[in-house]
Amino acid sequence: MPAEKQPAVLTVEGLRELYRSGGTTPREVVLAIIQRAEADAGMNIWITPPELGRVEPYLRNLEHLRMDDAPLWGIPFAIKDNIDWSAAPTTAACPAFAYEPSQDAEVVKRLVAAGAIPIGKTNMDQFATGLVGTRSPYGETHNALRPELISGGSSSGSAVAVARGHAAFALGTDTAGSGRVPALLNRLVGYKPSLGSWPVRGVVPACESLDCVTVFASTLEDALTVDRIARGFCEEDAWSRELPACAQELPERVLIPRLEELSWHGPFADAYRTAWERAVQRLCSMGLAVETIEVSLYTEAALLLYEGPYAAERWAGLGEFVESHPGETFEVTERILRSGAHERHTAASLFSAIHRLQRMKRAAHRQLKGAVLAMPTAGGTWTREQVLADPIGTNSAMGRYTNHCNLLNLCGAAVPSEDAGDRLPFGITLFSTAEQEALVRGVALRFVNGAETGTMRSDELEAMKEGV
Amino acid sequence: MPAEKQPAVLTVEGLRELYRSGGTTPREVVLAIIQRAEADAGMNIWITPPELGRVEPYLRNLEHLRMDDAPLWGIPFAIKDNIDWSAAPTTAACPAFAYEPSQDAEVVKRLVAAGAIPIGKTNMDQFATGLVGTRSPYGETHNALRPELISGGSSSGSAVAVARGHAAFALGTDTAGSGRVPALLNRLVGYKPSLGSWPVRGVVPACESLDCVTVFASTLEDALTVDRIARGFCEEDAWSRELPACAQELPERVLIPRLEELSWHGPFADAYRTAWERAVQRLCSMGLAVETIEVSLYTEAALLLYEGPYAAERWAGLGEFVESHPGETFEVTERILRSGAHERHTAASLFSAIHRLQRMKRAAHRQLKGAVLAMPTAGGTWTREQVLADPIGTNSAMGRYTNHCNLLNLCGAAVPSEDAGDRLPFGITLFSTAEQEALVRGVALRFVNGAETGTMRSDELEAMKEGV
Repeated sequence: MPAEKQPAVLTVEGLRELYRSGGTTPREVVLAIIQRAEADAGMNIWITPPELGRVEPYLRNLEHLRMDDAPLWGIPFAIKDNIDWSAAPTTAACPAFAYEPSQDAEVVKRLVAAGAIPIGKTNMDQFATGLVGTRSPYGETHNALRPELISGGSSSGSAVAVARGHAAFALGTDTAGSGRVPALLNRLVGYKPSLGSWPVRGVVPACESLDCVTVFASTLEDALTVDRIARGFCEEDAWSRELPACAQELPERVLIPRLEELSWHGPFADAYRTAWERAVQRLCSMGLAVETIEVSLYTEAALLLYEGPYAAERWAGLGEFVESHPGETFEVTERILRSGAHERHTAASLFSAIHRLQRMKRAAHRQLKGAVLAMPTAGGTWTREQVLADPIGTNSAMGRYTNHCNLLNLCGAAVPSEDAGDRLPFGITLFSTAEQEALVRGVALRFVNGAETGTMRSDELEAMKEGV
Repeated sequence: MPAEKQPAVLTVEGLRELYRSGGTTPREVVLAIIQRAEADAGMNIWITPPELGRVEPYLRNLEHLRMDDAPLWGIPFAIKDNIDWSAAPTTAACPAFAYEPSQDAEVVKRLVAAGAIPIGKTNMDQFATGLVGTRSPYGETHNALRPELISGGSSSGSAVAVARGHAAFALGTDTAGSGRVPALLNRLVGYKPSLGSWPVRGVVPACESLDCVTVFASTLEDALTVDRIARGFCEEDAWSRELPACAQELPERVLIPRLEELSWHGPFADAYRTAWERAVQRLCSMGLAVETIEVSLYTEAALLLYEGPYAAERWAGLGEFVESHPGETFEVTERILRSGAHERHTAASLFSAIHRLQRMKRAAHRQLKGAVLAMPTAGGTWTREQVLADPIGTNSAMGRYTNHCNLLNLCGAAVPSEDAGDRLPFGITLFSTAEQEALVRGVALRFVNGAETGTMRSDELEAMKEGV
C-alpha cells in the first residue's frame, strides 16, 4: 500500500488486520511514517526522527517472529527522548546531557521482544520538567490539531507523533502529568500505570521516587495492550514493584469534584467548563453511582510537587549536571531546577512534607476504596505565545488536576471526552489506587466505548482509519 | 501467694498456670511488683511507677473476662513513656513535653482488651534518642544484672522492668535499635516486628517513617503471643500496613557476617567476640545452611541514620518543641536533635539519600530472599561512667548492628545467646524482610530452644521461675 493510502491513525488492531490481509507491510508503514515526519518537520515532534537505516534491523527481525506469538508484530512506536534506545542518543532534550545508551530501557526491550518497531526519539520539555511542550532547545512542539496551541508536555513529541499518525503508540514518562496533559491536548489516551508497575530502568530520572513510564495511544485498547507487555517486576529497577496485570472491573462509585472547586483557564476556559459538564453527564449515564466530593486533599498534595520540597528531588538528580554545564540548560528549566536548591528546602522540611503526604495518601486511599475519581485532565489550554509570555504561571495551571497523582500513589487513565470546540479536544482522567487499577480500566473502557450515551468519536476514528 | 514467693521472672505461661491452679492472683502479682519497684527505686526504671490505684480498674475489669477468651488475662506489662496510656501522662522522658493522653495508644488498647494489665510507664532515653539508657532527666537506668553497666536504650526502663520481674513483658519502641540493644544487655528477647505491622497511633514520633512499637519478654514465646495481639492494620495510623500474623518457618540459609567485618568495643570486647563465636557455632549446629557474607551494605545503610540526613527527621518532629522550650531538653539529646537542622542536610541531599537507600533496600531484599541474617545485637557494652565521658561515641558503637534494620525495611528478633561472662549477657539478632517475618521466628525459636546444642539458659530460667 503506498504511503498516502496508509491509515492516518495507526492502531495496533488496525495494522494487524492490514498485515494479516496483506493490505500493507511494516516496511510500507515505516516509509509512510518517514514521509509524514518529513512533512511535519516544522512541528518539532522529533529529536531523532524516523529513518529507515535505524529501523531496518527491527524490520528484518520480524522475519523471525510469528505474528501470533508477537502481539505487537510490526507496530511502530515512538520513544520519548529520556528513555534509552540503543540505536540513538538519549538527550532528555538537552544536547550537552546527551549520551549513547549501551542498551535499551527495559520497557523498550520488552516491546521490541513483542515485535514492536521503535522508530525514533521524540521531543520533550527538557529533563521532563514542564507540562507545556515549549521548553526544548529542539523547538516548541506544535499541537497536533491547532499549531498555535501548545502540545502539552513534557512528553510533547510522543503525543503529537501518535496524533499525527507517525506511530501507533508512543512511550512517555509521567511525574507530574507529562503522560496525561499531552494526551488531553492531542485527543489521545494517556495511560499512567501505578508507580513501579512498569520498569524505569534506562529512563533519565526526573523525580526518581515518582517517575513512571507511560503510553500514548489512539485507543484505550491499544494502551492496555502495551501495558500487558511493558508491565512486570524488574530486578535492576530499585523502584519496581510486583503489580501484576489486571483485568477491568467496575467500581462501586465514581467520585467527581464539586463544580465550585474546579477552576478553568486560558482562551477556551468556558468551553472547557462546558465540556467537563458534558463529561459529567456521560459519567452519570453509565449506570454507576456518581458522588460529588470535596477534592482539597488532592489539590493540597499537588502543591507539594512544585511549590514544596519535592522540587529538590529534581535538583538531587540534575543539580550536579546543571552546575557543571553553565549555559547548557534551557533557561526556564534551569530556573525551576534551581528552585529545588533553595535554602528553605531543608531535609527537615522535606520530612515534614513526607509525613503530611503519608496522611494524605491514607486519606485518599480511604476515600478511593472501591471508587474511581474523575477529574478534568486539565482545566484549559494556552497558545504557545501565552506560555512564552508567562512560562511558569501557565505551566502551573496545566498541572492543577495532574500533580497529585504520583505523590498519592495513584494510577490514572486520561481519556478523550467530547471536544470542547473545533479541533479543541477535551478529556478526563480516571484515578484510583495502585491496588485498584482494574477499576480505572473498567470506568475508562465504559466511558470511551460509549455506554448508554453512544459513540463519542468512534465514527470519526473509523473515518480516519480509512486513510487520508 | 505472698509477694516474696511470686516468681522472680514473670512469664505469660507461668502466670496463667499459677492463675489457673489458684496459686496466685493478678492482684497478688501486682502487689509483688509494687514492692519490687520500690526496692529497685534507685535503678531509675520507672517514670510513672506501678501503683495500686492506677491499676485497680484493670484488676476489676478482669472479673468480666474469661481467661480462655483473654490470652493475656491478668498479665502485667510495662509501657515505655513515649506510648500513650490514658491513666498517666506521656513524657517521652522530658517533663516539659508531658501531656495527658485522652486515650490509650492503639497497641495498649489491644493488649488491655486481651486482659493484660498496664502497670506503669518506664524511663527511656529522652525522645527515644539514644541506645544507652543514660539520657534521661529521670536518672540513668541501671543494668538489671550489673548496676555499673548501662541498661541500653532507648527503651531502658522497659527492658529492666521485665528483667527485674516488674512485668511479664514491656512495650518499647525501636527506630535505630531501641527495642533490641536493651534486650541484649538485660538478657531478654526483644522482638521488633516489621514497619507498619503494629500500629504507632498514640506513640510519640522519633523518626516517624521508621518508628516501631516492640516488645521485651523473658521468652520468645511470650513475645510472639504479644505480637499476635498487637499486630494488625489500624486505619488511624498513616504508616500502618496489612501484614498479617505469620507462623514460623525455616529459611533456606542463615547468613552471617565475615568475622573481619565485625568490630567489638568496650570493657568486655574480647568476651563479646568469643560469645559471638559460640553463637555462630550454635547457628551452625541447627541443621540449617550457614553462609558467610559481606555486610558492608548494612553498615553503609546504618550510617544514614545518625550521620546522614535522617537526623533531620527527628528535628522535623521535635524542632519546634526544642526551640520553644529552651533549657528543657536533655543536653546531649538536644545536641543530637539539632544536628538534624544542620545546613548540610538539604532536601536535595535527603532525596539523594532516599535514592541510595532504595537501591540498598533492593540489594538487601535480594540477598535476604529465603534467608535470615544473624548479627551480634551489639559488639559490646559500656559502663555508665564511660558513656558519661563520651556520650556520642559510645552510643554510636552500640548501634553498629542495629541502625540498618528499619531503614532497610527489615524485621528483627533479638534473642539471648550464651552469656559473654558473669552477669554479662550476650545475644544475637535475626533479621529478614518484612515479607519473611516467619523465617526470623523459625530461626529464633530453634536458636533459643536449643536445637542440637541443648538448653542454654532454660534451666536457669526454670530456677528463677521457682521464686527468689
